[in-house]
Amino acid sequence: MTTPAFAEAIAAVAAAVEAELEALLPHAEGPQAKLHEAMRYAVLGGGKRLRPFLVAAAAELFGVRGAAPTRVGAAIELIHGYSLVHDDLPAMDDAALRRGRPSCHRAFGEATAILAGDALQPLAFEVLARSDYGADSEQRSALIAGLGVAAGSLGMCGGQLLDLMAEKQDWSLADISAMQRLKTGALIRYACEAGTILGRAPADAAAALGAYAEDLGLAFQIQDDLLDRGGEGVATGKDAGRDDQVGKATFVGVLGEARARQMLVELRAAAVGRLDIFAGRATVLSQLFDFVISRKS
Amino acid sequence: MTTPAFAEAIAAVAAAVEAELEALLPHAEGPQAKLHEAMRYAVLGGGKRLRPFLVAAAAELFGVRGAAPTRVGAAIELIHGYSLVHDDLPAMDDAALRRGRPSCHRAFGEATAILAGDALQPLAFEVLARSDYGADSEQRSALIAGLGVAAGSLGMCGGQLLDLMAEKQDWSLADISAMQRLKTGALIRYACEAGTILGRAPADAAAALGAYAEDLGLAFQIQDDLLDRGGEGVATGKDAGRDDQVGKATFVGVLGEARARQMLVELRAAAVGRLDIFAGRATVLSQLFDFVISRKS
Repeated sequence: MTTPAFAEAIAAVAAAVEAELEALLPHAEGPQAKLHEAMRYAVLGGGKRLRPFLVAAAAELFGVRGAAPTRVGAAIELIHGYSLVHDDLPAMDDAALRRGRPSCHRAFGEATAILAGDALQPLAFEVLARSDYGADSEQRSALIAGLGVAAGSLGMCGGQLLDLMAEKQDWSLADISAMQRLKTGALIRYACEAGTILGRAPADAAAALGAYAEDLGLAFQIQDDLLDRGGEGVATGKDAGRDDQVGKATFVGVLGEARARQMLVELRAAAVGRLDIFAGRATVLSQLFDFVISRKS
Repeated sequence: MTTPAFAEAIAAVAAAVEAELEALLPHAEGPQAKLHEAMRYAVLGGGKRLRPFLVAAAAELFGVRGAAPTRVGAAIELIHGYSLVHDDLPAMDDAALRRGRPSCHRAFGEATAILAGDALQPLAFEVLARSDYGADSEQRSALIAGLGVAAGSLGMCGGQLLDLMAEKQDWSLADISAMQRLKTGALIRYACEAGTILGRAPADAAAALGAYAEDLGLAFQIQDDLLDRGGEGVATGKDAGRDDQVGKATFVGVLGEARARQMLVELRAAAVGRLDIFAGRATVLSQLFDFVISRKS
């Protein structure tokens, strides 16, 4: 179960990351004000900041807090935000709504939305390269290389291509898992990895956290698929039932709801088991797992 | 005038960068083979590799040759290649041809073209973050931060937004210069800056090269506009006369051909003057200027 203390902790990280993003994003002024406005629209005021929380929780296991995990969390949100803008484009998922508001291209036009995504990406790498947040230059290189792989064709972009191919195809559970490992899993795993880079984690602890993040990423997507089906109290801010309408292959489509919920239970047990190595010091990560699989949006 | 030795030098850099890109780009295999194929199509076998030559020529002024300028040149070409793919999209310039072949979205479809661009970008930053090309971690951070700014909303992406706004507007020479300084100028200036980072250039030499690159970038664009008008021996591999058709504001449109050509002469004189500080050791950069303003494609 998630506790009031956990709810406070996740709200604190979200607030710190929001303030950091506010400071890192260009103001909506100058000749390209419209582009800056679209970038801010895509990133600010939205989402639960789960990935930054994962960075912070992983880094804290090794005694690292403050500016460094906040910066890395913000960089991940810049990438995550750009990916949502491009995923929503007419040529991709053609989504009208995102977080209960018009999608970026509906609000700003298609060309500006493409460019806003294009401009968020280099900003993410630039803010990791700066020397002003307490990571040394070797750590910064490792953080950038890791984010580059996670966001690229062997990570998130590769997963999005496979997801587009999944429409109207008859995929197996293994196919969907492989796609989701890239599409949503890569950035979630990177968030954990970034925490271990900041914390200079020993190899066995980093491996345990990597395995935990792998399970968390799959559970996140299964819960997403369950929420897409709609139901009591669900408020995703997206077009509900869209995956079904376009015949997209999803975990719930292949497994059915009951088996999908059972898989969440199994993934939770496995993920919590990965944390044994931390001898009770990582309860916040098991609470995060519960939070992810019980969320309503 | 450009000499046979200069032609050989530019061909040598192009060949080295082509081989580097071949090695850095993912092979067209695996479940996301189509994405990898589109990334390779966008980047390999095309272009004169002017920006990598600029990196190499600037670095060589400070005695640095080999793997490091080649890697940085390749990273710039990954960014340049992605930008062409996205600029050609239906929602942007809607171009059917690029380098004499179908544009990426015509060859692979719009969704794959968007994703190919999206995946080229993180690859550029990742390959700069790696420790395998002879730049130390401080240099790598500086290279990445600089590329992030040049490719972002205060650089190339900002310029592309202004360029889209320029259609059917009545812009002044100052407006067009400001737009082109971002759209094409930012990456050209970065190429010079990267050479000075690799060469650990003194501040006065770096400033002189920055001013040279500023002039070169404007001259590059004026020649581009002249070539877009078509004429004898012109072979851009793009849809000729398109800027005029869509009423886009260009240097040639505002100045007329004669004054545009005069401006090239003036920019050349200014740029070559910037190189005085190198006391005759930078003739390759004045030859590069001549190459840029006399090119037919």
